[in-house]
Amino acid sequence: LISPKSRASEIMQLGFPGFDNLRTFEDFVLSYDRKNRTAHWVVEHLTPDRMVYDKSVDRGKCAFRPDDSVHDYFRSKNEDYKGSGYDRGHLAAAGNHRRTQIAVDQTFLLSNMAPQVGRGFNRDKWNDLEKRVRGLARKHPNVFICTGPLYLPRMEPDGSMYVKYKVIGKTHVSVPTHFFKVMLMEVDGGKYDMEAYVLPNQAIPNETPLASFQVPIASIERAAGFLIFDQLPKNKLRLVNGQKAGSLW
Amino acid sequence: LISPKSRASEIMQLGFPGFDNLRTFEDFVLSYDRKNRTAHWVVEHLTPDRMVYDKSVDRGKCAFRPDDSVHDYFRSKNEDYKGSGYDRGHLAAAGNHRRTQIAVDQTFLLSNMAPQVGRGFNRDKWNDLEKRVRGLARKHPNVFICTGPLYLPRMEPDGSMYVKYKVIGKTHVSVPTHFFKVMLMEVDGGKYDMEAYVLPNQAIPNETPLASFQVPIASIERAAGFLIFDQLPKNKLRLVNGQKAGSLW
Ligand SMILES: [Mg+2]
Ligand SMILES: [Mg+2]
Repeated sequence: LISPKSRASEIMQLGFPGFDNLRTFEDFVLSYDRKNRTAHWVVEHLTPDRMVYDKSVDRGKCAFRPDDSVHDYFRSKNEDYKGSGYDRGHLAAAGNHRRTQIAVDQTFLLSNMAPQVGRGFNRDKWNDLEKRVRGLARKHPNVFICTGPLYLPRMEPDGSMYVKYKVIGKTHVSVPTHFFKVMLMEVDGGKYDMEAYVLPNQAIPNETPLASFQVPIASIERAAGFLIFDQLPKNKLRLVNGQKAGSLW
Repeated sequence: LISPKSRASEIMQLGFPGFDNLRTFEDFVLSYDRKNRTAHWVVEHLTPDRMVYDKSVDRGKCAFRPDDSVHDYFRSKNEDYKGSGYDRGHLAAAGNHRRTQIAVDQTFLLSNMAPQVGRGFNRDKWNDLEKRVRGLARKHPNVFICTGPLYLPRMEPDGSMYVKYKVIGKTHVSVPTHFFKVMLMEVDGGKYDMEAYVLPNQAIPNETPLASFQVPIASIERAAGFLIFDQLPKNKLRLVNGQKAGSLW
């Protein structure tokens, strides 16, 4: 049995993106953004043996529920999502944490959710990315994943850059314009391959390949306001988005 | 001589709004918002004797300069403001920290700045509010001030609420839609009077009274994503925005 404390250290061994309102759950770690009522980021650590589902664990028993560890002012509620047209989209995917009932239950806390477009995104392209993560986790000794929302600026006709996003419900839960996911896969010789994605929070055509959403990690870090896996020495990177790392750093 | 550590405890004795990227300066405490490249909040503590200026202290020697304690990705620069049309607006006002050269110098770090409309705001109505603070500080044994930016949602014609703000410069420094300032003045019997303001970051007509910008503190807390002076027991409040506290809580 691994104690929650040491499991958290294991999950976070490549660095904390930040320390704002940390939540250490049984199988993932989350930093809560009280202003946007979603997470800043969640970090997960997957291994092949963790991908073996326990048959006694039942996702059907899970319920979306508010995270009472967050002050009422900043705590997103089911009612905020109701009628908004957005899904309660998992950041740490439920399917990554099926070894114990408590682990999968905790992924259903609303602190682990953000408003996601349902069709074409949460239920489709974003889900494809989550499945890719699990496929990679079955083939590598260790996979680390950092996931979170982004609020990206766009140029408007006046030539200036603006950030614009909707907020839903009485609690004003922010609807991210994009989501990021960064994966680090341990390969031979203690090196790592990295993939870094930014997907727009909108219906994405099925035929669009996931690889078309790959970006340099620095573009995520600059927009998100934190560094991701910064304790990994750069010389331990082998491939980044399928290319030799040196060519990108 | 007061050590920096105990001065910080004195400044923060009514509670930390948060612990994200804290900067403890000689005479104020700041939490830096790496995503927006401005502070989340600054807290100051003023007393009548601290309002006595040291004649050797020269604001003219101060220079706006980047805060090198912030990672380059998230550090606002003078070039970000240049040509933007916005002033580098102090959050902790320079005029509140003139007892030592280092104290006033530190208010010129860009981590203590946010883009403010110059005429009608930074140089006028917001400056009036800062002068009001100093006037109150001369008349009360202790005044605590929490100041920061806000990004408030507005309803658009489609009936939904949106947050929208400009970002300036290569570093994408966010231009807040509003600024808040909350003051707590110690009065007789260990009680406190509170004033809480939200001003739009725009030219405000001279004739608009400051009192018209007073708001319930909860509206600031909900929008900002943190609690302000939450270690002050509610029963220690006498007046809030000029009215008996009980009538508002
Ligand atoms: Mg999902
Ligand atoms: Mg000013």
